[in-house]
Amino acid sequence: MTLDLVIRGARVVSGSSVATCDIGVLGGRIATLGTGLTGDQVIDAAGLIAMPGGIDSHVHIAQPSGPGIEMADDFASATRAAACGGNTTVMPFCLPEGGQTLREAVAAYRAKANGQCLTDVSFHLIVTATDPVTLGQDLPALIAQGLTSFKVFMTYQGMRLSDAEILQVMDVARAHGALTMVHAENEDAIEFLRDKAERAGDIAPVHHARTRPIPVEREATHRATALAEIADVPVMIVHVSNGAALDEIRRARGRGVRVFAETCPQYITLTADDLDRAGFEGAKWVCSPPPRDTDEQGAIWAGLDQGAFDVFSSDHCPFRFADSAGKDAPGARAAFRNIPNGIPGVETRLPILFSEGVSKGRMSLTTFAALTATNHARIYGLEHKGAIAIGKDADIVLWDPRARRAITQAALHHGADYTPWEGFEVTGWPVRTILRGRTVMLDGAPVGPPEGRHIARACAAVTA
Amino acid sequence: MTLDLVIRGARVVSGSSVATCDIGVLGGRIATLGTGLTGDQVIDAAGLIAMPGGIDSHVHIAQPSGPGIEMADDFASATRAAACGGNTTVMPFCLPEGGQTLREAVAAYRAKANGQCLTDVSFHLIVTATDPVTLGQDLPALIAQGLTSFKVFMTYQGMRLSDAEILQVMDVARAHGALTMVHAENEDAIEFLRDKAERAGDIAPVHHARTRPIPVEREATHRATALAEIADVPVMIVHVSNGAALDEIRRARGRGVRVFAETCPQYITLTADDLDRAGFEGAKWVCSPPPRDTDEQGAIWAGLDQGAFDVFSSDHCPFRFADSAGKDAPGARAAFRNIPNGIPGVETRLPILFSEGVSKGRMSLTTFAALTATNHARIYGLEHKGAIAIGKDADIVLWDPRARRAITQAALHHGADYTPWEGFEVTGWPVRTILRGRTVMLDGAPVGPPEGRHIARACAAVTA
Amino acid sequence: MTLDLVIRGARVVSGSSVATCDIGVLGGRIATLGTGLTGDQVIDAAGLIAMPGGIDSHVHIAQPSGPGIEMADDFASATRAAACGGNTTVMPFCLPEGGQTLREAVAAYRAKANGQCLTDVSFHLIVTATDPVTLGQDLPALIAQGLTSFKVFMTYQGMRLSDAEILQVMDVARAHGALTMVHAENEDAIEFLRDKAERAGDIAPVHHARTRPIPVEREATHRATALAEIADVPVMIVHVSNGAALDEIRRARGRGVRVFAETCPQYITLTADDLDRAGFEGAKWVCSPPPRDTDEQGAIWAGLDQGAFDVFSSDHCPFRFADSAGKDAPGARAAFRNIPNGIPGVETRLPILFSEGVSKGRMSLTTFAALTATNHARIYGLEHKGAIAIGKDADIVLWDPRARRAITQAALHHGADYTPWEGFEVTGWPVRTILRGRTVMLDGAPVGPPEGRHIARACAAVTA
Amino acid sequence: MTLDLVIRGARVVSGSSVATCDIGVLGGRIATLGTGLTGDQVIDAAGLIAMPGGIDSHVHIAQPSGPGIEMADDFASATRAAACGGNTTVMPFCLPEGGQTLREAVAAYRAKANGQCLTDVSFHLIVTATDPVTLGQDLPALIAQGLTSFKVFMTYQGMRLSDAEILQVMDVARAHGALTMVHAENEDAIEFLRDKAERAGDIAPVHHARTRPIPVEREATHRATALAEIADVPVMIVHVSNGAALDEIRRARGRGVRVFAETCPQYITLTADDLDRAGFEGAKWVCSPPPRDTDEQGAIWAGLDQGAFDVFSSDHCPFRFADSAGKDAPGARAAFRNIPNGIPGVETRLPILFSEGVSKGRMSLTTFAALTATNHARIYGLEHKGAIAIGKDADIVLWDPRARRAITQAALHHGADYTPWEGFEVTGWPVRTILRGRTVMLDGAPVGPPEGRHIARACAAVTA
Repeated sequence: MTLDLVIRGARVVSGSSVATCDIGVLGGRIATLGTGLTGDQVIDAAGLIAMPGGIDSHVHIAQPSGPGIEMADDFASATRAAACGGNTTVMPFCLPEGGQTLREAVAAYRAKANGQCLTDVSFHLIVTATDPVTLGQDLPALIAQGLTSFKVFMTYQGMRLSDAEILQVMDVARAHGALTMVHAENEDAIEFLRDKAERAGDIAPVHHARTRPIPVEREATHRATALAEIADVPVMIVHVSNGAALDEIRRARGRGVRVFAETCPQYITLTADDLDRAGFEGAKWVCSPPPRDTDEQGAIWAGLDQGAFDVFSSDHCPFRFADSAGKDAPGARAAFRNIPNGIPGVETRLPILFSEGVSKGRMSLTTFAALTATNHARIYGLEHKGAIAIGKDADIVLWDPRARRAITQAALHHGADYTPWEGFEVTGWPVRTILRGRTVMLDGAPVGPPEGRHIARACAAVTA
Repeated sequence: MTLDLVIRGARVVSGSSVATCDIGVLGGRIATLGTGLTGDQVIDAAGLIAMPGGIDSHVHIAQPSGPGIEMADDFASATRAAACGGNTTVMPFCLPEGGQTLREAVAAYRAKANGQCLTDVSFHLIVTATDPVTLGQDLPALIAQGLTSFKVFMTYQGMRLSDAEILQVMDVARAHGALTMVHAENEDAIEFLRDKAERAGDIAPVHHARTRPIPVEREATHRATALAEIADVPVMIVHVSNGAALDEIRRARGRGVRVFAETCPQYITLTADDLDRAGFEGAKWVCSPPPRDTDEQGAIWAGLDQGAFDVFSSDHCPFRFADSAGKDAPGARAAFRNIPNGIPGVETRLPILFSEGVSKGRMSLTTFAALTATNHARIYGLEHKGAIAIGKDADIVLWDPRARRAITQAALHHGADYTPWEGFEVTGWPVRTILRGRTVMLDGAPVGPPEGRHIARACAAVTA
Repeated sequence: MTLDLVIRGARVVSGSSVATCDIGVLGGRIATLGTGLTGDQVIDAAGLIAMPGGIDSHVHIAQPSGPGIEMADDFASATRAAACGGNTTVMPFCLPEGGQTLREAVAAYRAKANGQCLTDVSFHLIVTATDPVTLGQDLPALIAQGLTSFKVFMTYQGMRLSDAEILQVMDVARAHGALTMVHAENEDAIEFLRDKAERAGDIAPVHHARTRPIPVEREATHRATALAEIADVPVMIVHVSNGAALDEIRRARGRGVRVFAETCPQYITLTADDLDRAGFEGAKWVCSPPPRDTDEQGAIWAGLDQGAFDVFSSDHCPFRFADSAGKDAPGARAAFRNIPNGIPGVETRLPILFSEGVSKGRMSLTTFAALTATNHARIYGLEHKGAIAIGKDADIVLWDPRARRAITQAALHHGADYTPWEGFEVTGWPVRTILRGRTVMLDGAPVGPPEGRHIARACAAVTA
Repeated sequence: MTLDLVIRGARVVSGSSVATCDIGVLGGRIATLGTGLTGDQVIDAAGLIAMPGGIDSHVHIAQPSGPGIEMADDFASATRAAACGGNTTVMPFCLPEGGQTLREAVAAYRAKANGQCLTDVSFHLIVTATDPVTLGQDLPALIAQGLTSFKVFMTYQGMRLSDAEILQVMDVARAHGALTMVHAENEDAIEFLRDKAERAGDIAPVHHARTRPIPVEREATHRATALAEIADVPVMIVHVSNGAALDEIRRARGRGVRVFAETCPQYITLTADDLDRAGFEGAKWVCSPPPRDTDEQGAIWAGLDQGAFDVFSSDHCPFRFADSAGKDAPGARAAFRNIPNGIPGVETRLPILFSEGVSKGRMSLTTFAALTATNHARIYGLEHKGAIAIGKDADIVLWDPRARRAITQAALHHGADYTPWEGFEVTGWPVRTILRGRTVMLDGAPVGPPEGRHIARACAAVTA
């Protein structure tokens, strides 16, 4: 049996251990780990670190984003950026548009993605309707097909669900073993504060942050965990931005609720001050929840440090600043309310965490792998992903831990026309991304045709 | 290159993944993972689960235990029991006796262990003195030799340290990168309650539990984490028995203190009612902290479930009921105060957790491996232990997940004359223990000469 | 100047002190406190305790209660019962019916009350609509007329407000100095659990309690305090039933939110087991939130003990068991869902607290006065009520602290056809109620014509 | 019956109400409250506010304070200052010196006080020894004599008690109905930080604050409440300086422990920056716990606002800056360790709270009276003090709510040679202090001979 590919001599981060060894790949899967391996193709990885390919379980691609607003990435550009940022799987959302059923939405997204993707893709659903067909037929059918997780929103008019609806969705999740993800911000409170701000003439981008203060997220986080407690299901709280919300998660766990938690690069590196730049520039940092301040960054680091977070995702949600609603308009149209919520990040997530965490000595390589790949696979049911281990897909990213770079828009591959981290300096950079044994990125450039696949998933994590 | 040993066809629990493959061993280390491996010796493990050999980071062996009380295990019997229970490394404590220095104590314990051990052994220290020689010379020297963790007691007259002393010890830990472990119970409060109980004539074994109520442990746990916060060091809280103490750990983590937490089989399976049996029988369940009740068992399970605990150890501390101080004495001598604190458990820890957790569907195989081996190795610096991964010691335990047993003293190998789990039924049992490639237990019986080694350790975990 | 009335020789509970002295009344107000006073009428109160007349700030009278359900008390019977129970002021709610505006509802309730009341009456509003007329005109106008407090419901279909609506109401409260009261239970969660219970055939009265579990109230309590935090207003959480909800109030206070808290007799004396009696009998104990268990009773006592509660009210909401929807109906109609929510209690509130608190040595006389009268007056702005002090209305109740009674329906004066405390034994009973200098109850019997007045109120408490 | 004295026309703050009326005094007690009263002496108080005379339950007078350090106040000067600051009763501590028994110390303090005091005086004890005579004989005897409260220290070498000793003292308190007061700071942790600071050369006064950080107080506060929980007694936590310590008190109350809490002017007006003035000047602000920062001031205000504090005292502990140990010494002698801990405040406590609270609209008159007089009397058992009510001692202070002053050392009467509030501007000032019917301060000047009495006390508060 001759191996197709041998990656030789990297420091291999495998599960909870790190060892210098060879990785043997056969048929796109990891077939052997050892030393002195030989194969048809050999990659000399001495001096590099071999990590499980990044899984970004929270990205938005080609989603409808309101009238006249197009998301900056289609599947081609998003997965190209993902691969260049060290990822081998992305998990975007299917959002029904207009009168679409959830099944139609899934079909539409699959169609948009087919043949376009440089990485593998596995969809979450977004549940925006709770009619009997959606809950009784579509959702169970889609779960059975491997779409085993879905997000509900407590914010955003038109997408938000009521508590009653969330409970119904959770009840389906419980019956069919799926995982409910929650965007936890209290829409009513935000609207209240937004109306107040607007009446006071406070419409600059920074007021996006000021009208979504921490209590708005803390309230919704407690409520989300309480609904999970009542429905008796696990729940994933996505993009936790501050210590008070995280404390609600800790308290819920103390009550015995199984709560998973996610955070993102923006919450350890950006602050609300970034939204307060001259003119409309701050629009580039508008996302929800908003970045907070350095104290809250500290609280999020403490959570990463203590194992309070399960996954570290990008919440990639790219728009073009050139399109920014009203940015050149006079008067009230240039209001923060009209700025689409989201920032690009799929390409920069891993280098930021590697640099801020591993390179600065605050995070071990194994924790990095867990937060960026392994736990995503375990929690969301990507059975063949997330680890350098026998039988797994040969999804591997090689890091040069000594490479020093400044992040610049010029060097990125996403569809957005800016990066919120322009000039941000990092140590450590992915130099080769391998998807099921095939190199899809080398030295910063995408490689080869888009052969990414749709990945069906097992039921999501229900056991520690 | 011919492999010395191939373990063929087990479901291998490696880090965060489970795969059916072969494990190749060379020179006592894991050399290759793959399929179709061949070697000098082949163990057919089809149908079995290969786990990293259990590491029990909290055992007491051959420790002085007060006038006239001899611990029931020496190194030969303790490690024989450990191996039969699926362990390949135990971590006992060196406790200075009489006027011994810490270095002398280490030398004495090493001498007692030399040539006796069926498993590998790596010592923690117990710090009972804080004189300049101990703190300024012995402790740094011993850390440099690989004894990178030490326990301090907040309870037990003669062993307990004051807060001032604990801070001094933590300061040494900080300077030299060692880890401080804390037994957190407030001795003064216990003495107060014990004196009260005795004055009231309440001297039966159950009063051991009643005079060490939860607030006594909660108080000391908060204090221990506060001292760690003030000294700016990580801390391990050993044998957490209840939800209130665990909540203190959660709160400390929320403040940014790095707190590791341990629990033990007694806190998920036993209750204070076990101490309340007729006559002096309850003495068999006397340990500190005492088992609580089923609600607190639930809180401990919630912690295991949520990742609040890092390690699951036995706190093996075996005595012979036949020796129990005063058990046959009339009157006041037969008081709970005189019962040595501790229960045997090194041989039953793994089957109990496997059965209650994995077999009952409450815990994944990977979490089991993390709690019983991997995290012990990572936190305490056992660099070559704790995982089935290339380059690690070939410390492997094969489990038969379908084996059903009732735990009985008759079948155990420890030196105690009873087990607190007599008749406890389990599903899943370790059928072969392999230490550095050599089988040391097969089908319940110890195998071969005692070739366990002393393992020096790297500095303990200071990064997530 | 001759006094109209002198109450001689009682132990007078005045604010924070207790002294044996005379109370001199002139023109319906307390004119002098001293000894040796003389007047036209003299009441010998030696051996009795003179308390400020009870203020019950949470009663429902003659409210519409769903199709075919009439509340068991009109203003005549309710205030007669109140006076017989030691009260001199009750605070019922004005609930708009059908298409009524809030102003029309107030007019209607005043008309129903006019000339009927044996005690004084001061109305709260219930806000069930948030149209511009209600919020922009009616509410400010009614506040200006002295209706300075209003309740919003987070539960009950048809009455509940959304978070958005509650914030709007709170904003009006903030602008006009009124106090928002919140019934904090999550309606959506209750509906979810109720539907589940009904599908399972669990329709007996006890399922009323089981479908409103503690997390339902804890969630809404946290949310209510968060909304108050966001709107920057004080808030009163009414009828707190358990320790977890109370802890949310404590946490909110720790964040600087001014939260007032109320509890009721049912939460210190009844349990959910009372709803679990044979047949439909349990319907007599159906109220929301439901009574919990003895542990939660303990938590409520701890709150009373520690000053966590500001007021102790009855939440009098009387129905006739004879009318109970479906109580004699076969099958599904006899469901807990159809039982009107509420129990009678205006007449028994004070004796229950006096007996359980004062007589059992758990509560001082001054705390009793604060919880049953003084704090109600201070918080809700009843400037001339709530204390035996110069210039206050001569609203006084004389207690015989040695009287022993069993509460029985036969001896009560309310319109309900049962009492949930049938047979409950108390020590201490009010023997004379004096309203503005005129005796309205003597030895258990109502006295004289109904001359109670409508009391306008100052703005509610906004300063400690 | 002719009244000795009538105070006419003030707004009288009585218990929980405020009314404009006359106060009639006979035989030193309040005999009548009403209007149109006449008497031998009439004080026209129109436009003034009559408050219960201030009770300062936390002052240190003539206490030994270490070698060569004399406290700046004897009983004459301290009570003169107290009376000028609107107080009628002070509660100093008896601290045994040298080999004194507690009884001898009481005798000595009484001798020092006899004939010197312009206000009434009621002593607390400080328990520094727990020998059988102290606990078994002296303490019970002194409690029986009306010294019903005692303080224990968790800090200060030579004064601090161990947890064991505190529990023994609490047990005596429990048996005899006395109240234990705790100074909650962890001495061991302070010593650890102090030694570190000194080794680093950080000996300026500001390091007093930096070596007593919040965790040191939070830890001890949790411990103190846990010991009270274990001993089953109420406890008073004195001089709470920050929100984290207050949260521990809230948590303890939530567990059902009866915890009283005190704060002081320094924690709402000063910060650690005050200790950081040029040269040795910062020594003037050295007290324990140290002032914190404006956030913590906010947390203390929130506590005052929410009723979390029972009493507001001065912790008057006056030293002369001229005597400050080492202030002119070169080198290491001029270290913060040698600065006596304490600041003068008995004369400024009430104007500061009146101005910051009442005049700024943050606190009602009745809450002011409760925090400065009524609650002190209730909790510590001063049966005839603390309220303007029939039968109480005629201890009354008249305030001019419009008077505006800047606090200056020149105008104060204490023995210290500075005030920490030099230049602090206040609105509202006491213009007349009346002790048992006799004016002892008028328009800022002490009046008449020192006729203050020793006041024996009833058992301290054990019921809400």
